[in-house]
Amino acid sequence: MRRAVVLLSGGLDSATCLALAKQAGFVPVCLLVQYGQRHQVELQAARAVAASMGASDVRQVSVDLRAIGGSALTDEVAVPMDRPAEARAHGVPVTYVPARNTVLLALALGLAEVVGARDIYIGVNRVDYSGYPDCRPAFLQAFEALAQVATKAGVEGEAFRLHAPLLHLSKADIIRQGLALGVDYALTSSCYAPDSQGRACGRCDSCLIRQKGFADASAEDVTRYAPR
Amino acid sequence: MRRAVVLLSGGLDSATCLALAKQAGFVPVCLLVQYGQRHQVELQAARAVAASMGASDVRQVSVDLRAIGGSALTDEVAVPMDRPAEARAHGVPVTYVPARNTVLLALALGLAEVVGARDIYIGVNRVDYSGYPDCRPAFLQAFEALAQVATKAGVEGEAFRLHAPLLHLSKADIIRQGLALGVDYALTSSCYAPDSQGRACGRCDSCLIRQKGFADASAEDVTRYAPR
Repeated sequence: MRRAVVLLSGGLDSATCLALAKQAGFVPVCLLVQYGQRHQVELQAARAVAASMGASDVRQVSVDLRAIGGSALTDEVAVPMDRPAEARAHGVPVTYVPARNTVLLALALGLAEVVGARDIYIGVNRVDYSGYPDCRPAFLQAFEALAQVATKAGVEGEAFRLHAPLLHLSKADIIRQGLALGVDYALTSSCYAPDSQGRACGRCDSCLIRQKGFADASAEDVTRYAPR
Repeated sequence: MRRAVVLLSGGLDSATCLALAKQAGFVPVCLLVQYGQRHQVELQAARAVAASMGASDVRQVSVDLRAIGGSALTDEVAVPMDRPAEARAHGVPVTYVPARNTVLLALALGLAEVVGARDIYIGVNRVDYSGYPDCRPAFLQAFEALAQVATKAGVEGEAFRLHAPLLHLSKADIIRQGLALGVDYALTSSCYAPDSQGRACGRCDSCLIRQKGFADASAEDVTRYAPR
């Protein structure tokens, strides 16, 4: 059985990614990265997701990207609320964490080398996160090229593959695929500004995108929301 | 004045790198990364080096690569001693930390983006560390290509430059350049197995390479050694 490192954030996308990695026949090694995100609920959600899918190999690495700063997800910067879809579609969001996916993939690559995996899954999605530079195909291709020359295994001729199976899917398509594979989205957390009990705000960009996804997929929105 | 992020490890090479970045006219932003290395003396050395060169902007990021494992530098694995040069020249050393330079450069890239720097200095050296995959020109080129597509600034058309000014130098040449620029190598620490007072063992690969460098440069070896 081949192993694959799966980056698991606790969100809807990476949960779907884990299901797809399992469906592809990989034994997942889940990598949770505590990067100074303000909301620890994400990591709790990631562990619940892994457990619900029988993924028993879960590793957690901490890196304090707060020491670098520059994002509403790690700094004390307000997250925008109630933005219409047009506003969400333009520019790089304040929730962009500088070089986050580069850091996450670098850690995944190190773990892959240690556990003997040659495949890495990341749940990036071009449609929803068009504003994030490190969610685009050009970025993923450049990282896959880097992986070949960055590692002992790569230098010895083994190929690393970076899988981003959600890259070209709409949120609705992601949800449809995940539901077909039995993903329990009630366990996932996507909100940028959850309350102290981990309930979603229903108003940040991420909540709005997620709500629209469930609606477009004609699926029940199982998200736990905070009272308005 | 343009800023450059300089990865500073506390060793001889990165100290020289800092001097070269200053000579090139950059205002250095020093990045210290605590990645679970067994010896905290390295970080103390890095701070002393920065202070001695008037580099007042020093940032420190922690990432626990020990959670990933796989190296004598982060795990409880014995560091080889008294190896002849021929033995040192073959294969990937046990001190190789999987994907370390990918992680370090990813963090440097994030910091560069936040502080408005477009230049990153790393003190890798092809001759001495030929066994490390992530010290080779192909790796550095691949990372520079990644930086262009991984960041907001890169996507907006600004070029990131990765500087590895020691890449093709011998240890003796590095020492000669550093001495000419006033680097105080007594502040630096290169040893893989220092004692509790931070004194070098004089027997690990890194110490042997460093000793040979001082000898080849006809320079005094100012390293503090533990009593044998």
